[in-house]
Amino acid sequence: MAQKPSIPKGTRDFSPIEVAKRSYIMNTIRTQFQHYGFQPIETPSFEKSSTLMGKYGEEGDRLIFKILNSGDYLSKVKDDAFAKANSNALTPQISEKALRYDLTVPFARYVVQHRNDIVLPFKRSQMQLVWRADNPQNNRYREFCQCDADVVGSDSLWQEVEFVQLYDAVFTALKLEGVTIKMNNRKILSGIAEVIGASDKLIDFTVALDKLDKIGKEKVIAEMLSKGISEEAIKTVDPLFTISGSFGDQLATLKGLLATSETGMQGIEELVFINEAIESLGLESATLQLDVTLARGLNYYTGAIFEVAAPEAVKMGSIGGGGRYADLTGIFGLKDVSGVGISFGLDRIYNTIEQLDLFPEEAIEGIKVLFINFGKEEALYAMKAIKQLRSNGITAVLYPDAAKMKKQMTYANRREIPFVILAGGEEMENKTFALKDMVAGEQETVTLDALIERLK
Amino acid sequence: MAQKPSIPKGTRDFSPIEVAKRSYIMNTIRTQFQHYGFQPIETPSFEKSSTLMGKYGEEGDRLIFKILNSGDYLSKVKDDAFAKANSNALTPQISEKALRYDLTVPFARYVVQHRNDIVLPFKRSQMQLVWRADNPQNNRYREFCQCDADVVGSDSLWQEVEFVQLYDAVFTALKLEGVTIKMNNRKILSGIAEVIGASDKLIDFTVALDKLDKIGKEKVIAEMLSKGISEEAIKTVDPLFTISGSFGDQLATLKGLLATSETGMQGIEELVFINEAIESLGLESATLQLDVTLARGLNYYTGAIFEVAAPEAVKMGSIGGGGRYADLTGIFGLKDVSGVGISFGLDRIYNTIEQLDLFPEEAIEGIKVLFINFGKEEALYAMKAIKQLRSNGITAVLYPDAAKMKKQMTYANRREIPFVILAGGEEMENKTFALKDMVAGEQETVTLDALIERLK
Repeated sequence: MAQKPSIPKGTRDFSPIEVAKRSYIMNTIRTQFQHYGFQPIETPSFEKSSTLMGKYGEEGDRLIFKILNSGDYLSKVKDDAFAKANSNALTPQISEKALRYDLTVPFARYVVQHRNDIVLPFKRSQMQLVWRADNPQNNRYREFCQCDADVVGSDSLWQEVEFVQLYDAVFTALKLEGVTIKMNNRKILSGIAEVIGASDKLIDFTVALDKLDKIGKEKVIAEMLSKGISEEAIKTVDPLFTISGSFGDQLATLKGLLATSETGMQGIEELVFINEAIESLGLESATLQLDVTLARGLNYYTGAIFEVAAPEAVKMGSIGGGGRYADLTGIFGLKDVSGVGISFGLDRIYNTIEQLDLFPEEAIEGIKVLFINFGKEEALYAMKAIKQLRSNGITAVLYPDAAKMKKQMTYANRREIPFVILAGGEEMENKTFALKDMVAGEQETVTLDALIERLK
Repeated sequence: MAQKPSIPKGTRDFSPIEVAKRSYIMNTIRTQFQHYGFQPIETPSFEKSSTLMGKYGEEGDRLIFKILNSGDYLSKVKDDAFAKANSNALTPQISEKALRYDLTVPFARYVVQHRNDIVLPFKRSQMQLVWRADNPQNNRYREFCQCDADVVGSDSLWQEVEFVQLYDAVFTALKLEGVTIKMNNRKILSGIAEVIGASDKLIDFTVALDKLDKIGKEKVIAEMLSKGISEEAIKTVDPLFTISGSFGDQLATLKGLLATSETGMQGIEELVFINEAIESLGLESATLQLDVTLARGLNYYTGAIFEVAAPEAVKMGSIGGGGRYADLTGIFGLKDVSGVGISFGLDRIYNTIEQLDLFPEEAIEGIKVLFINFGKEEALYAMKAIKQLRSNGITAVLYPDAAKMKKQMTYANRREIPFVILAGGEEMENKTFALKDMVAGEQETVTLDALIERLK
């Protein structure tokens, strides 16, 4: 036989069971998106290169998959890019389209392009594939699905409150208890930068501080010093080393620390609002936690910052994140569209649920009942029953050929079909069905109505 | 403002209402696929070029979107392809991956690659995007969704019977009554070719015969003669000009005509089996019809040929099709995997349902109720109710800002939200809600329980 075919690295085939499990997660997210009033949109898999290039930094430009122009694309190449073997110069001449790299830039493009049809505030959800020419590693793929919800055109902090509730609702629906929704605010980080007197050291500072639990105060301070943060600055923020307790307690500590920073105090005020609202509304299964070391999307987020940690039993890293941004659509010339959004990390949520064995039986069930094929007449009798079962929502199939009994039973076993029907001459005469429970090994004779009732 | 951004030609943005309508159709198909025991798989959006190239003919090769290699791709170009401005020679040197062109070749690749994990007969469904660098025309796109179901590893005609039932089940569930499922058999076409003594004229013959209803027998014969089909041959197949009546009647006519063709008679026998089974099982809303002019996939199909016509009131062309093939995986070196499959034309089904105004209200409903925002306290009162509504599956939202009443009501109107809640101090005190029916214009005061009951 020829060489076994394979797929490009960083991509995946999804088997029926994997599709079922992924669909279960995606449908759960989709349902909550819907209940919260997020409207689904879809954008094309590829955009004009001019839409995507330059929007994700140099690294991003490099990782965007470019689509080769169709036809005799070389006939339009004008300069000597090729002669000099200059790939970078040649690319824009032979490629005008590129694969979606995230859902945010296409959403921004969508908002600008359809701005006359959109009513603000616009709550949109989007669950689509994105592609990145990343070096495939553990849990990183070149094709993966992003699940985003954003609301643009409103500065209201009720949006942040809703996103906390939304995370809680989704993970509760997935029975994923013990999730921690971590929040911070860009303004608090700005306040800390002000207080330590070095905004360029902010990341070094938060990265070091984040290790407090693991390596202890002394080593954290040593790391900060080694990164050029002054001893004086470290002294000033000393309260951060002992910050603890509830969301409210931590805010109280921060209030003292950031009293001199107007921006910092504004961040605190925002978090107070969100925390009070959530305390009043309650969460089902998640915990809301303030984490001043949370510093994702620093160049992008202007207010709230979210990150969701999987239950502690699972070492998974973040399974979601997001934040508030001041400017979504400026890159396409439309000013003053601010918003806030969150994202669900499908692959990591999948792995978390898998590890905790929380996929429900009914979400992954395949064929419920197989009818053994004894020949044309019996098969027709079976097909009549199968039609009734299917219209009652029961997945039923006829073994297509009147093969040997053993072969048919082996098929049922290998496919893990829980019930098998044997209906021959006697059953046809009596209008009954011999139902074999493949797990219990028991067999009984039932009418069609009883069969439907039993399998429903 | 900068130039309004746009999307590549032949691609589409889908607005929330369009996504909802497409999801309604796809979910309906998906549910029936599931009831019939088809297992969903998903394959990567791009495959290795070697997997796709050469599988769809020269035209197909040209229309496949190729992905440019990442990094300094020119450094690996070895020959003088560029100097000669030879795009065709250069492409395989700078592109190793290509976008999925259909779902059949990836399915074949999947079956071969995972053959040790697959239990035959394997019933698989797949609903994914495909991309073609076609010249975009009316209803033809460069990105579109294919919805396929195939079963491989069984020659049983019960599969064909099931596909007729499946088409009927899907279109019945979509309330698309009056659909015609047209069937033919490659072997009958071979028989006709034998009888007219010219297999190379088969397409000319069926194309001309297909016009019988429109232009009449004389003109059809003239066309046949002009295509080089002999007068004698036309005389031999004279019964085809008057073939009519039920599926069974037509088969009887064919029996006389193709008596001398072993292959033709085999085709008839197969159709007899399918027709008798369907007559015995019954169809819900579709009609099964024999159409000897149906000649799609001649190079590919070896048995049954399916094509589904939209209800006559809609001029739409075929909304589905498929057939039986002898060899799925030979292109990847695995012999003897035969199968049969059908496809649903999502875009045309969408347009048909749209034209007939058959999208159900509940499938496209957006936000059910908007809570007017009167300020922080009232908003919190609203959010508590909203939480209850959402957990009852009702899409409820708070207007995010305490904006002017008029602005909030305008939002409700523009978003076509059917109900609005006004809850201020008095309602909060009485634990009630003023519910305004935006369609009827009426207003009433209700408790939370009554509200849930009303909106559910």
